[in-house]
Amino acid sequence: MSDGSRRGAELDPSTGPHERLRSLGLELPPVATPKGVYVPARRTGGQVWTSGQLPLVGGELPATGLVGAEVDPDDAAAYARIATLNALAAIDALVGLDAVASVVKVVGFVASAPGFGGQPGVVNGASELLGAVFGSAGEHARSAIGVAALPLNAPVEVEVVVDLT
Amino acid sequence: MSDGSRRGAELDPSTGPHERLRSLGLELPPVATPKGVYVPARRTGGQVWTSGQLPLVGGELPATGLVGAEVDPDDAAAYARIATLNALAAIDALVGLDAVASVVKVVGFVASAPGFGGQPGVVNGASELLGAVFGSAGEHARSAIGVAALPLNAPVEVEVVVDLT
Amino acid sequence: MSDGSRRGAELDPSTGPHERLRSLGLELPPVATPKGVYVPARRTGGQVWTSGQLPLVGGELPATGLVGAEVDPDDAAAYARIATLNALAAIDALVGLDAVASVVKVVGFVASAPGFGGQPGVVNGASELLGAVFGSAGEHARSAIGVAALPLNAPVEVEVVVDLT
Repeated sequence: MSDGSRRGAELDPSTGPHERLRSLGLELPPVATPKGVYVPARRTGGQVWTSGQLPLVGGELPATGLVGAEVDPDDAAAYARIATLNALAAIDALVGLDAVASVVKVVGFVASAPGFGGQPGVVNGASELLGAVFGSAGEHARSAIGVAALPLNAPVEVEVVVDLT
Repeated sequence: MSDGSRRGAELDPSTGPHERLRSLGLELPPVATPKGVYVPARRTGGQVWTSGQLPLVGGELPATGLVGAEVDPDDAAAYARIATLNALAAIDALVGLDAVASVVKVVGFVASAPGFGGQPGVVNGASELLGAVFGSAGEHARSAIGVAALPLNAPVEVEVVVDLT
Repeated sequence: MSDGSRRGAELDPSTGPHERLRSLGLELPPVATPKGVYVPARRTGGQVWTSGQLPLVGGELPATGLVGAEVDPDDAAAYARIATLNALAAIDALVGLDAVASVVKVVGFVASAPGFGGQPGVVNGASELLGAVFGSAGEHARSAIGVAALPLNAPVEVEVVVDLT
């Protein structure tokens, strides 16, 4: 209720996250199989915490390497969006996206060339997707961090925590 | 109540976090405007999670670069303290510092030159401020991490999770 | 109850985490004294959040340096296991391991040589130990991150969040 009214400030309250993804031309991908003894997302109390998500598309990374060197920052923002779509798929598979009341936290790790300080612009690819899907309920706390290397030499990794209705 | 008695072990229970900041000669700065679709802090249940905070002073970084190379570790500890003051400002703007029962977790990211292993000393700048402001209720779990680069080439970034009364 | 039945799918329900550690030939070490104004683990609501744990053995690191350069990835997985054992010791000292209902999240930071993308294999050293100790209740969300440097030049650092019964 209160959640619907918050979203109503920006988004058509008669639509849900699935419709908004469709109107963005996006589709939730299948959840990627984790490469270890862990799960794509876990429920704890009234929250879901996702694993760090890579920008895998059909099991493949569209690019590898350091942002600010091999990977263009604008492209990296698009990869952060893909990683976030994978996080939404993990949440949807666990509890259904309609059960998301709000987004609490996003951490965006950006594999960064020495001296690259544009992590906020890259991680905006994640934040803007969450805003488009959840409206003001998608406003989250966020950390953007530049790291030396990521699994499979991915350029970005995104983890998400959401509150459930 | 129980919170007051815990703090009472170390600090004058008749004072609150605002008074303690004043007695340290510190003032909460205005909350920095986030550079994306996110917010400085989010409440979730009985907690507040802050965004990663940079050591911005009046919107400017006092230094940039890697700790252990361009930035002295002792200076970096002072910057971690400033970043933590910004985190406290974000919490205060959202719920008021008097609503903080205890500090749960601090993550301190330190932009680190190759081979620099002094992250704990740097992040002590954050932990010691929280101890001075909250007493034993400020004792937190903590991770100190050395990273390749941070937004705007900041030397440190600090995120904080607190429990509310 | 439900917890016991989940574990029962894989593990002898008549044993607890202490017995399982013993059957693995492992013993909980003493909790390492933090190097600052923080604590090894904090309880918040029905959870415990640990500090980032290094693979200290008797207060000493068995190796230092970057994984993929000075440190072999398979050895690093063993160090991730040791760091996780230290995390379990911190949880045990705070609430007792028998109070753990399930593992929510693991973040594994791996000090990584440029171009090293094998963080998932390293952090499996953490995840597999949690699976062996807690069975399916040990299945967690996870992020594996490659970083520039860690405290004391440790090769890995592991933090753990658990739900309590």
